[in-house]
This record gives sequence, structure tokens and C-alpha cells, in this order.
Amino acid sequence: LRSKLPDVGTSIFSVMTQLAQEHGAINLAQGFPDYDPPQALLAALAQHVTTPGHQQYAPMPGLPRLREAISQKTAHVYGVAAPDPATEITVTSGATEALYAVLAAVVHPGDEVLVLEPAYDLYGPAIRLQGGVPVYVPLTLPEFRPDWDRVKAALTPRTRLIMLNTPNNPTGAVLTPQDLTTLAELLRDTTTLVLSDEVYEHMVFDGQPHHSVLQNPELRERAFVLSSFGKTYHATGWKVGYCVAPPALTTELRRVHQFVTFSVSTPTQHALADVLPDATLFETLPAFYQQKRDLFRELLAPTGFRLLPVEGAYFQVANFSALSPGTDDVTFARRLTQETGVAVVPISAFYHDGQDHSLVRFCFAKQESTLRAAAQRLQQGL
Amino acid sequence: LRSKLPDVGTSIFSVMTQLAQEHGAINLAQGFPDYDPPQALLAALAQHVTTPGHQQYAPMPGLPRLREAISQKTAHVYGVAAPDPATEITVTSGATEALYAVLAAVVHPGDEVLVLEPAYDLYGPAIRLQGGVPVYVPLTLPEFRPDWDRVKAALTPRTRLIMLNTPNNPTGAVLTPQDLTTLAELLRDTTTLVLSDEVYEHMVFDGQPHHSVLQNPELRERAFVLSSFGKTYHATGWKVGYCVAPPALTTELRRVHQFVTFSVSTPTQHALADVLPDATLFETLPAFYQQKRDLFRELLAPTGFRLLPVEGAYFQVANFSALSPGTDDVTFARRLTQETGVAVVPISAFYHDGQDHSLVRFCFAKQESTLRAAAQRLQQGL
Ligand SMILES: CSCCC(=O)C(=O)O
Ligand SMILES: CSCCC(=O)C(=O)O
Repeated sequence: LRSKLPDVGTSIFSVMTQLAQEHGAINLAQGFPDYDPPQALLAALAQHVTTPGHQQYAPMPGLPRLREAISQKTAHVYGVAAPDPATEITVTSGATEALYAVLAAVVHPGDEVLVLEPAYDLYGPAIRLQGGVPVYVPLTLPEFRPDWDRVKAALTPRTRLIMLNTPNNPTGAVLTPQDLTTLAELLRDTTTLVLSDEVYEHMVFDGQPHHSVLQNPELRERAFVLSSFGKTYHATGWKVGYCVAPPALTTELRRVHQFVTFSVSTPTQHALADVLPDATLFETLPAFYQQKRDLFRELLAPTGFRLLPVEGAYFQVANFSALSPGTDDVTFARRLTQETGVAVVPISAFYHDGQDHSLVRFCFAKQESTLRAAAQRLQQGL
Repeated sequence: LRSKLPDVGTSIFSVMTQLAQEHGAINLAQGFPDYDPPQALLAALAQHVTTPGHQQYAPMPGLPRLREAISQKTAHVYGVAAPDPATEITVTSGATEALYAVLAAVVHPGDEVLVLEPAYDLYGPAIRLQGGVPVYVPLTLPEFRPDWDRVKAALTPRTRLIMLNTPNNPTGAVLTPQDLTTLAELLRDTTTLVLSDEVYEHMVFDGQPHHSVLQNPELRERAFVLSSFGKTYHATGWKVGYCVAPPALTTELRRVHQFVTFSVSTPTQHALADVLPDATLFETLPAFYQQKRDLFRELLAPTGFRLLPVEGAYFQVANFSALSPGTDDVTFARRLTQETGVAVVPISAFYHDGQDHSLVRFCFAKQESTLRAAAQRLQQGL
């Protein structure tokens, strides 16, 4: 049996979560909250799971009332024309399935896909499973900004797609309207598509709005834009995401989606449709997460980590070279988990070639008490 | 934008369901029950969706307690060695994702995959999305039995996989222990793997047991065996299935699963783990569905359809040539839906080349009142 992904092991998130469990470490590695979804959402789901008739297949593209709610929310939040629920919105088994299915739908063998690194661990393998060729363009340290000249240099007639992720996991950087304009210009005379992973859309800080690819009309015409209810509603275990894309792109996505998962949990979609019109649930998120970011940074200040800026998402990247010079980031992350009792992810896991910049990632989507306990262990242990 | 599946439209099940809705037809087309899951399961899910801490990511291979319950159930039902939950069981987003992920994990470009036709509509496109070559071997009419000599003749050194489906959708035929022995002999000196789609495992009639590929030790060593909680628990909308396979095969499956969906709804997995130990819930299914089959056949007897035998699953295939000679099955299915008010699936949809045998498929997983209403429309309308 010849493996299709011989070099791919178990996802770093699973590995670190398991290591955390084995060592009783506080898990700031895998990105998920240690608090629950809003009460209204839980109540809605509890109701729908006992509603007769709500337990059978949802329509393949998603429940119409959920797609309608997504459409209205998108128009409301971004001030753009509402995407057509019938032809431009597809509900998926988490943003993970959306990412995978978009790649499976548009990447032909030999096609190149631009990936800005560091990047979420599935991008590379999911491209390769399609016979595609990931072309890695580094984000420029220390602030992990895209260097559009390098992107331009990497574009070829074989570039099928460029993958964006804003706010970025792991770096916390966000794209600006100027970034999007520059990219639109670069792509103007190409057939290159855009996949924009915007699952942290409601976690951007310091009074800045999230700039969605949907707001750039030129990019929107060629873009698949993804989001995730798991992130927005503290329900990563529910596995519901969605993709907004123009009709021709949505047709291709659905052609594949129908054979990858077919459809998504019906009662869960009903519950999400119930609460999505309540804008306060996501409009309060920036302040909610900014407070966690600020607290966590304050708590980490005395530990000797050098903290990188965090504009969005719920991760703090930190440089440990003053604390443990000469140690590689995987060793450092393991030791921090096993000896100090705080699990983190080494940033080399987000580089296809394991580049090591002495950085680790903390997830701060945790209760204040968890963040304080972790900081205390870090201060005592280091 | 060059389509990866230019010849693939919307799944026949969606098309017929929509047509049924437009025309107020009774939907016996798409395979799903019009009754609800067992009360105990609904209550369990309602509880878990409000249990703090049960709303975040499940482990990538599935919740340990659900995998443990699957292991014990498998050993209990089939009298085989319990599959190891840690290395041989993977929970997926329905059997659909399991099918897709197995194909993505083992089919390399140019590999051949044997498909016995008629076959579920996703097999061919999902193989082609991997760059694989579906090799179609017809099941022999009128009873749709496999002709193992034809299978043997179709095997080549490039045959990566053979896909089985027992009990069969759409034909209702089941494989015998002799079928499995014959196949095991054919594959003995090959590296061909087996994907056995056994989602209707608990719907086999007339006192016969279901013969699982897991019960043939030689096949089991090279097999991915799939099942679906949606089918067993009347909850097709929950989208939870699983795959049992030896450790080396499971490793490859999980390598892909982690990038296709990563994990499956946590509260739903908890609820399933709660009820799976209760064997009465699935041990009563053969009698439950046999009664529906017998009733439906009795109701259809006076209508002029010629009914094919149904050994398992919840579909009745019927020949309409006495009723509407010379009509192709797609036209007949559309007319039956639009004019007679009973939606069915034309069997040509299960052939890659649209072979027409004047057959349509009825789903009898419906309440007695629904089956009676449909029969009445059929009798009056034809
Ligand atoms: C799907 S597990 C990974 C969760 C996540 O998004 C992260 O930790 O980066
Ligand atoms: C996923 S929709 C199709 C349901 C089904 O299994 C069938 O109708 O054959």
C-alpha cells in the first residue's frame, strides 16, 4: 500500500492535545474555547433535535433558511450586495470541508496553488491530494505581512488558486484593503482564483474592522470565501462552516461537496439559522477576544517571551529565544507541555519545510482563570 | 474554469426530491425515513447539546467512547474479534465521507477501481476525482447477482480496489458467504483492496443474517468496511458513519480524513455512544423493515408493476414495462412524480452510461400511512 501522503503524520493539533492530556498540561495548543456556545444557541439545538421531521437529510447545498440568514448577515456586516442563497452559498462540514472541497473542485493535476507561509497545516496536503503543486511564498517576518512582489514573482500561467487567510492563523495578522487592491491588480489578467479563509472574521481588534475579500468587487468575482460557525459561536465541535462564491464557482464546489459529505447536520443548521439574525452575538466578539488578548499579553509580559503583535484571531505567537537559546521550537513546545504544563504549537508545524523561527503559538480562547493558571505555570516553570 | 466533473449534474436524489416538492408528490425517491429516531437517542442528544464541554472538537478519529461501543457492537453482531478502537475504527461525516476519504486515501492517478453496477451515484465521480479509472462490471439481471468470472476478467495489476455494497442500494440483493469466499480467492495473490459499503447491515430479511466482509478473515485483512448511524437510527440528517479497517489501512484513511473534515459533531457522537450498547434498537430492525417491505409489495401487487425480489435494504425495484411500454425510465420517473404524485428514482441513474432496464426504485422506509397513500395514487393514476 503506497501512501498518498507518506510524509504526513497526525495533525500537530491532535498530537499536542494528546501530549497535554498525558501530562496534565493546560491545553493552549489546539485552537478551541474552553467555554460554551451562547445559551440561546444551545437551547435552539436542544429544541431542534427533538423536533419531529428535523432529523433527516438537509438539502445538499444547505438548509434554505440557513443560507438565507447567511446571505443577510453577509450583506449587513460587509455592506455588500447579498449573495444569492440559491446559487452562491454552500453549507459544509466545517470550514475544513469547505477548504478541501474547493481544492478538490478546482485544482487539476499539475496546477500550482500559492500558499503564504506560515499556513494552516491542511493547505499543503489537501493541495497535493488533488495532484496540485503547492508553491510556498513566505510572509515577511517579523510582522508576517505578505510581500506582494514575491507573490507576483510566483504567479505563473499554471497558478490555479491563491490561498489567503485573514485574520491569520497562526500569526494574527490581517489583510488591509490595500493588500486586497494590490492582489486584485496582480490577478487582473490571469485566471487565478482566490480561496479566502476568513473563519476568524469576528475577531479583529483595536477598533479595526475585518476586511473581507467579499468587499473587493474584483476579487469577489473569482473568490471562494469561507467562514465557520464553530469559531463564531464557540462550538468547534459542531462542524458547520460555509462558502460564499459566485454561481459558476459554487456550481463546481457543490459538484464535489455532494460526493464528499453530501449534506450537514439538519438540526444543527436549524439552530444556527435561529440565532444568526441576532447580530449582538457576533458584534460583541471583537471586544470579548480583545480583552482576552490584552489580559494574556499582560500576564505573559514578565515571563521572558517576546510577544508578536496580534491584530486578529485568537492566537498569540511568542518568541522564546531569550528563554531557551538554541532550542528548536518542537523541542521547546514539547518541554513546555511536559515540564511546565502548558501546551503550545511550534510554528515550524505551519511551514512545509519545518522552518524554525523560535516561535510558538498560544491559543487565548480560554476563560480568564485558565489564562491565569497557564501564566502562573509559565512564570514558575521558566 | 475547467470543471473536474463536467458531466456530473446535481445528484439524482436531490433532483427527484425537489421535483417531488414542486409537484406535491409523495417522496419515495430519496432514501430516508419519514419517522423519527428512537426516543432514547433524541433525549441523549438533547442532553449532550446542553452538557458543558461537549461542544468542542472531538478527537480526529472519533470520540473514544463511541469507537469503543462500535468495537463491542461489531464483535457482538458478527461474532468476530473486536476491532481495536485505537487503530481500526474511524468515525466520519456519514458513510459518504468514509467512501470519499477511503478513495482519496488509496486511489492513485491511473489506478483502476472495480464497481459492480448498478451502483450508488457517488462511486464513479469520487473515483474520478482521485484520477482513478472506474471499471464497471455489470451485476447480472434479473436478480442483480455478481458474476465473479466477469470480476476475475476485469482484475488487472492496476486494480487498486473493488467496491462492494451489501445489502445493495438500489437492488436489495445481498452477498452470500460463498460470494465472499469466491472473492477472497480471486484477490488472494493480488494487492487489490476491498471497500465494503454495508450501511444497510441491519436490514436483511426472511430470517437471513447480514454477511459482513468482516466475517471473512481473508477479506477483512484488506477491507475498509463502512456503516452509517443515519440508516440504523432513522437519522439520515445527523451525518455520522464509520469505517472499520486494519491498522495500516486505517492509518491511510485518517491521514486523509483529518484534512477532509477533521472530526465529527461531538454531542452527536456522545448521544450515539449512549444508545449503541442497546442491541434491541438494531436487532428489531429486520422485522421492522420486513413488515414494510411485505406491506408495500402487497399494496403494489395490483398496480401492474413487476416487483423484483428484495433481500435487504429499504428499496423496492420495480419494472414498469407492462405499464408504459417503450418509455425510458427517466421519463417514466418524472411522469410518475409529476402526474401520479409518487416520486421514484430511475435505475439508469445508477449506471455510468445511463443503461435503461425499465426499472425504478421506491424507498419503503416510510410510515404505513405514507405507503398506503402512495399505493392509492399509483393504483388510481396508472
Ligand atoms: C481542527 S483542529 C485545529 C484547530 C485550529 O484551527 C488550530 O488549532 O489552528
Ligand atoms: C445522500 S441522498 C441519497 C440517499 C440514499 O442513500 C439514496 O437515496 O440512495
